[in-house]
Amino acid sequence: MSLSNSSPVHHPDWVAEVHATQYLQSWSKQGGRPRVITGAEGSWFWDSNGKRYLDFQSQLVNANMGHQHPRIVEAIKEQADRLCYIGPAMGCDVRSELAALVAEITPTNLTSTFFTTGGAAANETAVRLARHYTGRSKIVARYRSYHGATGGTLSLTGDPRHHLTRADMPGVVRMLDPYCYRCPAGHEDVKTCPICRGGPHLEEILMYEDPNTVAAVILEPVVGTNGIIVPPDGYLESIKATCEKYGILLIADEVMAGYGRTGKWFAVDHWDVQPDILTSAKGINSGYVPLGTMSVSAEIANWLKDNALPGGLTYAGHPLACASGVAAIRAMDDEGALENATRLGEIMREELRAMMQRHPSLGDVRGLGMFNGIELVRNQETREPLVPFGAKGDAAAPMPAIMKAAMEKGLYLSFYNNIVRLTPPLNISEHDMRHGLSILDEVLDIADSETR
Amino acid sequence: MSLSNSSPVHHPDWVAEVHATQYLQSWSKQGGRPRVITGAEGSWFWDSNGKRYLDFQSQLVNANMGHQHPRIVEAIKEQADRLCYIGPAMGCDVRSELAALVAEITPTNLTSTFFTTGGAAANETAVRLARHYTGRSKIVARYRSYHGATGGTLSLTGDPRHHLTRADMPGVVRMLDPYCYRCPAGHEDVKTCPICRGGPHLEEILMYEDPNTVAAVILEPVVGTNGIIVPPDGYLESIKATCEKYGILLIADEVMAGYGRTGKWFAVDHWDVQPDILTSAKGINSGYVPLGTMSVSAEIANWLKDNALPGGLTYAGHPLACASGVAAIRAMDDEGALENATRLGEIMREELRAMMQRHPSLGDVRGLGMFNGIELVRNQETREPLVPFGAKGDAAAPMPAIMKAAMEKGLYLSFYNNIVRLTPPLNISEHDMRHGLSILDEVLDIADSETR
Ligand SMILES: Cc1ncc(COP(=O)(O)O)c(C=O)c1O
Ligand SMILES: Cc1ncc(COP(=O)(O)O)c(C=O)c1O
Repeated sequence: MSLSNSSPVHHPDWVAEVHATQYLQSWSKQGGRPRVITGAEGSWFWDSNGKRYLDFQSQLVNANMGHQHPRIVEAIKEQADRLCYIGPAMGCDVRSELAALVAEITPTNLTSTFFTTGGAAANETAVRLARHYTGRSKIVARYRSYHGATGGTLSLTGDPRHHLTRADMPGVVRMLDPYCYRCPAGHEDVKTCPICRGGPHLEEILMYEDPNTVAAVILEPVVGTNGIIVPPDGYLESIKATCEKYGILLIADEVMAGYGRTGKWFAVDHWDVQPDILTSAKGINSGYVPLGTMSVSAEIANWLKDNALPGGLTYAGHPLACASGVAAIRAMDDEGALENATRLGEIMREELRAMMQRHPSLGDVRGLGMFNGIELVRNQETREPLVPFGAKGDAAAPMPAIMKAAMEKGLYLSFYNNIVRLTPPLNISEHDMRHGLSILDEVLDIADSETR
Repeated sequence: MSLSNSSPVHHPDWVAEVHATQYLQSWSKQGGRPRVITGAEGSWFWDSNGKRYLDFQSQLVNANMGHQHPRIVEAIKEQADRLCYIGPAMGCDVRSELAALVAEITPTNLTSTFFTTGGAAANETAVRLARHYTGRSKIVARYRSYHGATGGTLSLTGDPRHHLTRADMPGVVRMLDPYCYRCPAGHEDVKTCPICRGGPHLEEILMYEDPNTVAAVILEPVVGTNGIIVPPDGYLESIKATCEKYGILLIADEVMAGYGRTGKWFAVDHWDVQPDILTSAKGINSGYVPLGTMSVSAEIANWLKDNALPGGLTYAGHPLACASGVAAIRAMDDEGALENATRLGEIMREELRAMMQRHPSLGDVRGLGMFNGIELVRNQETREPLVPFGAKGDAAAPMPAIMKAAMEKGLYLSFYNNIVRLTPPLNISEHDMRHGLSILDEVLDIADSETR
């Protein structure tokens, strides 16, 4: 038998046509013809017309070391020649090397790591393990969160996509977010707010739920997709202390925040908080090969000597993925990517704050390292969002209009409701970053025209 | 900052020690020191002592084209140099090429494909999509099944691992299996058995459940992990006809059975059954890069023009994975892998049936193509299994003893309860296959000593 050659394979029209008709795209209605991307390097990618775009998203906030980093590419090629795959129960050099490296950079209490192919499977395993380890069933999760698109993780997700589950995993309990710009308790001052302080709000929920039925709290230490929310100092410490008081595990979902995104290896490092379980993906290897992690504390690792890990997958500890992770972590370390993210992140937020004078639509600037967001408003005083939460169609129109205008000028941005996320590669140059901000400066005029 | 060199990185003792202490292994108690694998080629892999093993499992039944197939390795290296990653919404040549190839080889009614990183996410998306498409909530799944380790897929799994969910996804309804060697209805003859015929059993369950509440039936057309169960002719056709009668979708989980494992591209091809959704992973690219698929019918694809796909993941349509899939499918086609699997599979089952004379412990031989299993018994007449279902410790001991003896002789086998799975690469040589069978022949003496 013989397959068609599918020629002309590389013609962009053919690529776009097949994408529209035979490929299914995440979270979307199908049938749209995409931009065809033909290459990428560093902070830039380009399309089949030769148009270049500055990647202020790092794609889905995964390309922490930018595109086609030569050391990561080289490691993939070398490992491809050596050993693409061997089953998860076998000893394998790069698998052990990555496990050792992850143990070295994660908080000191975390000793052992399970490798998955992305964030969702890492969180699924974390939550199931927490239930077995504690013998309890409920999981506390927040509204402004995204934890993945599998049965359990979509149920934990607070993002409106969780409406899509159709059959929620039982046992999810909701907690509100320390979203101080729009404080759920209406406070101006964190000190007077039980929600934005963390522990008191969790305590109240536990009082109603019975702490002895709660296995874990899962949260993004710095919220990503749902709006780049940096908790006030003291928040995570307070949540952790409350968890400890009741024997509840703290699961830090660092799928987006981890691996230097905030300027430290992990977001929890900013407050020296030690989660019992930490999950990651994306930045660990910039997404060059699908990879995720679940790291656990020494106590849990010890328990796992007598109790089987309640999870697994065919591609657990995939050698090609592990090799790319080793190379990416070493490159981040050698090349000072975290320091660059810290330094340029400060400049970025300073520049953005300066733009608030010129742009009445710029309501809030926030972030840590290269994990930044701006909130667009109709009025800086009232903070009325430029588009309402969950808006669709015309009501949401200004946001895609801004993205489109930026894309035309060669800047790739992303948004969530009225929030624009600014998450370029950690190793972006100052020149490129300032270039991106200058385009943003121009397109914010569109938002300004909607202010009142 | 500077990371340790983790040297001596490649010393096998260090690899084994880190594996035991800092790496977490799927489904296992931790702490055991593994065999350290240092290389693989074709149907063989070897350890740090230079000992070579014939891979009669294809690892986790994924290495359909064996290890380190040069064309797949080359495609990975080329794509690594071109573009490791770009987000799922972008047009990308290898992504479209794989979508077109998959449409070409899957049953003709299936037109469009969503790409994941493995089997579980493919099944999660399939089930959620079925619920949205039909507006119904229940899913019928079988006991002798494994569908993955995420919240939804582990709930659907019938394998005892589903006891681990701790918070089942609602809406799972069970159906029995066409396990004719141990017919759940106690029949000798398929024709008189409503369960092994399929449709009548499903009809009865639907009568109790109300067919208008059932979104889909999910099944492995040929059961893999849970014992290589090939349905009698007519079974799948009968299930499909019953589904059609009530507007219920048929989801074929071909994660293990697909991509030539049974000697045809897909197991359903043996009976010309057209599932509404087909999922795959493993064999599509021999597992060299994590990849899974969910292909849907033209009707569903059409519905998805007006309704968003209720799922997604960061690594959907991963370019490196897609490139490896394209190369693997073309290699399978060019090199006649399906034909080889068919021809050698027949020889294998013939040889195994001949062994039944010599080995009183050999109770049943079954399979299709390179997807084969033998059932070990204490007595060929009574069919009493060599070890009981779900046995642990001493009661299960003969099975690991057989695996261990085989491993010492250089043959890598796997088992499930009393069933040994024989699933070498599709492109194994006849010589190697006969060599593997000769070792099996020797170690079956261990099972024979337990007969009575
Ligand atoms: C915080 C967080 N958790 C989990 C996930 C899910 O990861 P994946 O898409 O790899 O399954 C994401 C993805 O965006 C994420 O941002
Ligand atoms: C039939 C079947 N479905 C689904 C899965 C899950 O696939 P993965 O391990 O890639 O999540 C497997 C894995 O063995 C399988 O055999």
